[in-house]
Amino acid sequence: MTAAAGPVARGRFITLEGGEGAGKSTQLALLARFLEGAGVPLLRTREPGGSTGAEAIRTLILTGAVDRWDARTEALLVAAARRDHVERTIRPALEQGTWVLCDRFFDSTMAYQGIAGGVDPAAITWLRGFATDGLTPDLTILLDLPVEIGIARTAARADGRQRFELREPAFHERLRQAFQAIAAAEPARCRLLDAREGVDALAAAISALVATRFDLPPA
Amino acid sequence: MTAAAGPVARGRFITLEGGEGAGKSTQLALLARFLEGAGVPLLRTREPGGSTGAEAIRTLILTGAVDRWDARTEALLVAAARRDHVERTIRPALEQGTWVLCDRFFDSTMAYQGIAGGVDPAAITWLRGFATDGLTPDLTILLDLPVEIGIARTAARADGRQRFELREPAFHERLRQAFQAIAAAEPARCRLLDAREGVDALAAAISALVATRFDLPPA
Repeated sequence: MTAAAGPVARGRFITLEGGEGAGKSTQLALLARFLEGAGVPLLRTREPGGSTGAEAIRTLILTGAVDRWDARTEALLVAAARRDHVERTIRPALEQGTWVLCDRFFDSTMAYQGIAGGVDPAAITWLRGFATDGLTPDLTILLDLPVEIGIARTAARADGRQRFELREPAFHERLRQAFQAIAAAEPARCRLLDAREGVDALAAAISALVATRFDLPPA
Repeated sequence: MTAAAGPVARGRFITLEGGEGAGKSTQLALLARFLEGAGVPLLRTREPGGSTGAEAIRTLILTGAVDRWDARTEALLVAAARRDHVERTIRPALEQGTWVLCDRFFDSTMAYQGIAGGVDPAAITWLRGFATDGLTPDLTILLDLPVEIGIARTAARADGRQRFELREPAFHERLRQAFQAIAAAEPARCRLLDAREGVDALAAAISALVATRFDLPPA
C-alpha cells in the first residue's frame, strides 16, 4: 500500500522580461517546449492579461493612441490586471504544482511606467505589493538588446504596432537601462541575457539556466 | 478702459455620495439646475467615468457578474479611472473657473471597496492620494437612507441592476455605516442628509446648503 499523497510541491514561477523586439515570445515558446519535454506541468501566460478580467484590461492598456493614458493611470490599470491574474490564474496554478511561465510581470511595470515613464519607483513598489500580496518569481530572465535593433525588429512586424512600440527611441533607451538596473539590483532572482544571440543559441542558454536553477535534466 | 482680466477664480468642486437608491441622480440634476440658475459655469460628471478613458474603465467595473472582480482589483480599477478623470476633466475645468458637480468620488471607494469590501482603509487612502494628487472636494453631500428603502427603490428600476445593486443586504448596511462614519470624520467637508425626505424637500435642503457654503443667492 502506497502512502497517502502528501502536499503537492509548489510549482516554479518563471518570468521573461525585456523591451520591444527582444524576442520574448519566441524564447517563451522554446522554453515552454523544453520544460514540457522535461515533464514539467506547465502553464504559459502573459501580462498584462492571463485571466478573463485581465485580458479585458489588457485591451484598454495596449490599444489606442500613445497618449491614451498617462503613466500613472497605466500603472494602476496594470496593477488591476496583475491582481486578477495573480489571484485567479498564477497562484492557484502554483499551489496545484503547476509551473508558471509568464511573458512579462512586475519588472515591466517598474521599467515602463516607473523608470521610463516617470512614475515614482516607490509608488510602483507599493502597487506591486498591493497587487501581488508578495508573490515573486523564482527566476526572471531579462533579454537585453540595443534599442536600434529592437526598433528595427518591431517595425518589420506584420500585425501592426501597439502603443508602447510607438514611443520615441529615448523611451526605449530608458527602458533598456531600467531592465539592466533591475537585473543588477536583484541578482539572486534575475539573469540578464544578450538577445543579440541567434535564436537557437539564446534558447540553449535559457534552457541551460533553467535546468541548472531547478535541477532538471539538461536539454 | 477696463483692467486686464486677472487670474480666473478656481471653480468649486462638489461631490454627491450615497448608497444605491438614495436618489443621487435626481438630486444631482436638481442641484445642477439650481447652480445654473445662479449663473455658475457648471460641469456635471460622474465616477467611475467622466472622461473617455474612465468611461471605458467604468464599463469593466459595473458590468458582468457580482464576483467578476475582487474588491482589491476594483479599488485599482476605480483609482485608474479617477486618475484619468481628475487629470483630463475635473482639474482642467476647475482651473478654468468652471464648477464641477460629481456623482460619486473617492468617498465611494472608501465605502464600497474599503469599509464594505474589506480592503485595508490605509491602502484605499494611499490610492486616493496617488490618483488625485491631493485634489479634494470643497463640499461633499452624503445621502443617507435605510438599506431596505434603498433596495426597494433599485429593485423597481426598469433599466436593469448593476453589479453593486446585486450585493446582499449586509453589504449595503456596511456601506451605509461607512458613509455615516466618513461624514462624522470630516465635518468641514461633508454633510450627511436624510434621503427619506421627499424629493423637493431634499432638493431645497441641498440648494440651501450649497448657497450658504458658497455665498450664492438662495433659490
